[in-house]
Amino acid sequence: MNQNYKMILQYDGTRYDGWQKQGNTDQTIQGKLEMVLEKLVGKPVEVHGSGRTDAGVHALGQAANFFLQETDSADGDPESIKAYLNQYLPEDIMVVEVSKVEERFHSRLHAVRKTYLYQIETSVRKNVFERKYVYGLGKKLNINRMRQAAELLIGQHDFKGFCSNKRMKKSTVRTLENIIIEEMGSKVLIRYVGNGFLYNMVRILTGTLIEVGLGMRSVESVGEILELKDRQAAGYTAPAEGLFLEQVDYI
Amino acid sequence: MNQNYKMILQYDGTRYDGWQKQGNTDQTIQGKLEMVLEKLVGKPVEVHGSGRTDAGVHALGQAANFFLQETDSADGDPESIKAYLNQYLPEDIMVVEVSKVEERFHSRLHAVRKTYLYQIETSVRKNVFERKYVYGLGKKLNINRMRQAAELLIGQHDFKGFCSNKRMKKSTVRTLENIIIEEMGSKVLIRYVGNGFLYNMVRILTGTLIEVGLGMRSVESVGEILELKDRQAAGYTAPAEGLFLEQVDYI
Repeated sequence: MNQNYKMILQYDGTRYDGWQKQGNTDQTIQGKLEMVLEKLVGKPVEVHGSGRTDAGVHALGQAANFFLQETDSADGDPESIKAYLNQYLPEDIMVVEVSKVEERFHSRLHAVRKTYLYQIETSVRKNVFERKYVYGLGKKLNINRMRQAAELLIGQHDFKGFCSNKRMKKSTVRTLENIIIEEMGSKVLIRYVGNGFLYNMVRILTGTLIEVGLGMRSVESVGEILELKDRQAAGYTAPAEGLFLEQVDYI
Repeated sequence: MNQNYKMILQYDGTRYDGWQKQGNTDQTIQGKLEMVLEKLVGKPVEVHGSGRTDAGVHALGQAANFFLQETDSADGDPESIKAYLNQYLPEDIMVVEVSKVEERFHSRLHAVRKTYLYQIETSVRKNVFERKYVYGLGKKLNINRMRQAAELLIGQHDFKGFCSNKRMKKSTVRTLENIIIEEMGSKVLIRYVGNGFLYNMVRILTGTLIEVGLGMRSVESVGEILELKDRQAAGYTAPAEGLFLEQVDYI
């Protein structure tokens, strides 16, 4: 019998090439996790993430799952597995939780909601302790305008214009449940809650909302991007360093 | 006429050899500041800190002062000086504030109160985003015992037993106004408020309080260190990474 395990992860993406294992490099989150699990059980273990995060993107609550066999040498206790992983993972990846789940559970296919957080610094200098986790825009933003534009994006839409992948053959329709924009001191925090996100979608949404907040584009132009379905009509791709996968929800 | 300027600084001490300039190395906070000020006015400028911070110690609110001459080429406006410093300082040092002060103001001699913050992680792993700013103790602490021991330290005492400098010839009497111990999730935060601190005093106080919290030493033993005035009787020197100079007060 195989036992399926779900885990919740935190990572500082600064020095990684993103979530997904790539050829020979092991500078990926998935690669690091699989390396330690292989060390634990003595044979390769595949880790399935709830989704990829790009190079440099961080996670506060990424979800993933993997199977261990009963015949595996390792103790199958979730707490022991968590302790082992945290002992051997690098300092910038942490397992927050490991739990046994049903065999059919899949962290990507069964995710019903994801929350991304994007942090922007509007003052000229970033707080030195958060400098790797905030995008240093260095300019004032008009939050009211940004909130008006966000209203146009909430709901079910074809987000093709907010996707970097030109060869995307599958549906680009997604539902954005909410976009919450808050000011915290000189920082602006944007949270995106939705049932799924396209490649670079959060970063392009953020770049577009920033352009609205700077007065570089009209609030209405944001609705037009949805109609035109053209990446060229949307704003720039905000940098990875300000982005966190905050939470993945399952039923 | 010379104009005296006060500044408030934030820095991540991780990659520095502490505050004080040392011979040829420029890997000090003072050295970095003086280098940029020299660039600004075209000749050496001395920066006086409120006190030294050790290698690896951070600051949320270090205070310092320096003089510029009216004949200096630079614009004497505090906001311009702040902007210039922040433009040329490395990302891990930030000037929060620059203001004109009276000629007789001295950041070290006129400081009346300092607050240090020490951050301890009691769970096995550190939060990945705070890993450089928290001491990873990884053991549970008995906060009540620590608070009882802290009570014995508050007030005016000869803190010689809590000083690493054996050749200290000046008075080792200091007044600790308060020690505030708080739990924040799995972290324990200790704030030390006092009129002055000896070399390594905060880190030795912290190591000693940790030993009390772990049950390795009695609450009463802390009072005995004050009587014995012997560094050997006190606890270990807690590591620099958990320590922040939080605030320096002037009248």
